[in-house]
Amino acid sequence: MLELYHFGPVANSLTPLLCLLEKGLPFQNRLLNSRLWEHHSPEFQKLSPDGTVPILVHDGKVVRESTVINEYIDSVFPEVPLRPSDLWFRAEMRVLTKFVDEYFCPALTTIGAHQATPFASKIDKQEMAQILARMPNEEVRRKWETVSDSGYSEEQLADARRRLQVCVRRMESQLEHGGEWLLPGQYSLADIKWYSMMPGVPRLAPELCNEEVAPRTTAWLQRMKSRAAVEALEGYRPPR
Amino acid sequence: MLELYHFGPVANSLTPLLCLLEKGLPFQNRLLNSRLWEHHSPEFQKLSPDGTVPILVHDGKVVRESTVINEYIDSVFPEVPLRPSDLWFRAEMRVLTKFVDEYFCPALTTIGAHQATPFASKIDKQEMAQILARMPNEEVRRKWETVSDSGYSEEQLADARRRLQVCVRRMESQLEHGGEWLLPGQYSLADIKWYSMMPGVPRLAPELCNEEVAPRTTAWLQRMKSRAAVEALEGYRPPR
Repeated sequence: MLELYHFGPVANSLTPLLCLLEKGLPFQNRLLNSRLWEHHSPEFQKLSPDGTVPILVHDGKVVRESTVINEYIDSVFPEVPLRPSDLWFRAEMRVLTKFVDEYFCPALTTIGAHQATPFASKIDKQEMAQILARMPNEEVRRKWETVSDSGYSEEQLADARRRLQVCVRRMESQLEHGGEWLLPGQYSLADIKWYSMMPGVPRLAPELCNEEVAPRTTAWLQRMKSRAAVEALEGYRPPR
Repeated sequence: MLELYHFGPVANSLTPLLCLLEKGLPFQNRLLNSRLWEHHSPEFQKLSPDGTVPILVHDGKVVRESTVINEYIDSVFPEVPLRPSDLWFRAEMRVLTKFVDEYFCPALTTIGAHQATPFASKIDKQEMAQILARMPNEEVRRKWETVSDSGYSEEQLADARRRLQVCVRRMESQLEHGGEWLLPGQYSLADIKWYSMMPGVPRLAPELCNEEVAPRTTAWLQRMKSRAAVEALEGYRPPR
């Protein structure tokens, strides 16, 4: 049995969700409510001690880290392969997913978390102190300390936007081969990983990602949105 | 033919070097002199456009990123396997290598780069401006701007030391299973990746990594140092 604990079809939670849907694998849908801090509950921490989301539970065994989860799914369930069989292209795929984890995700997280400042700064100070004290991961706690206070500085936000521009330029240059997907001739886990972040860019920084400055990225986003598995993501949104 | 371009047996360059030696694979040794900025030369940039080191060239094809290179080597040359055949343990191995790339390496780089300040700040300002202008990677250029000026702030260095302590604690807890290597029962690419960084900690921050506060890590470092392949690394040091 597969169980996916996630926050809905956004950011790192989208990564394994889309992989499972692309492969048509049945799974138990374990949606967590981040605004109720369900991922910092003692119950969830039995599965994910540092509160990291998403996690996949496969026959009782926990698999962590969205990029690692997807390679695991693709190796255990090799039907509908999402990794190139050519080993050089498989390495290129990993360079692309690694870039998202190390560079794209932190930049987008800074801007996205800053937008949570109006929500987080309204929480009663004493209540917030208790919430922060329960956070098991030091880096996450530091992020929420910033967000629930005054948010990131103008300088930090400008640097995050600069890095987002690097990401869009990298995608434009990656798509220079003229194919539909990030690797020539094959839809792969690289497209899934980049799609976990890229839709956030035109929303949070429209000047960086539009038809004029990023025509290939914009066309790729359209192609992604018309895939059946991407359309099916809508069924996994948290109820409003 | 395999060619490895590297800076010697240290940090990310050590990662594929040790992997090749563990597997007993013959390769052309392409040692670059970082103090002469050989990795920013137009010639090297034909192979590695953003100046990233190490790279592996396999029959003319460039493979990038040390962690990706090692998975590539292990899949193309599966004799002397360095990845668990069990897929769940293989995922755990990737969680461990990913942590080094995303968290351990940046923390150690801050402290290590700061120690280059006496060297870098002695370079003539005009010459340094030219060196900086030739750096193809924006993040690397920013690092050297800092290092050649006044170095990192006390606050930045203290935060990097805090993160190094998290790394040592993670290794101590990972080794709780009582086995010799990071994964129970098998020496793997995870040990190789952690060994690319961990020897720097007792050197740069001895209070964080010694027999008293980190007994398992210290014993693991000793076990690593007595491996034949680790001893063989000495033959790949730059001439003094």
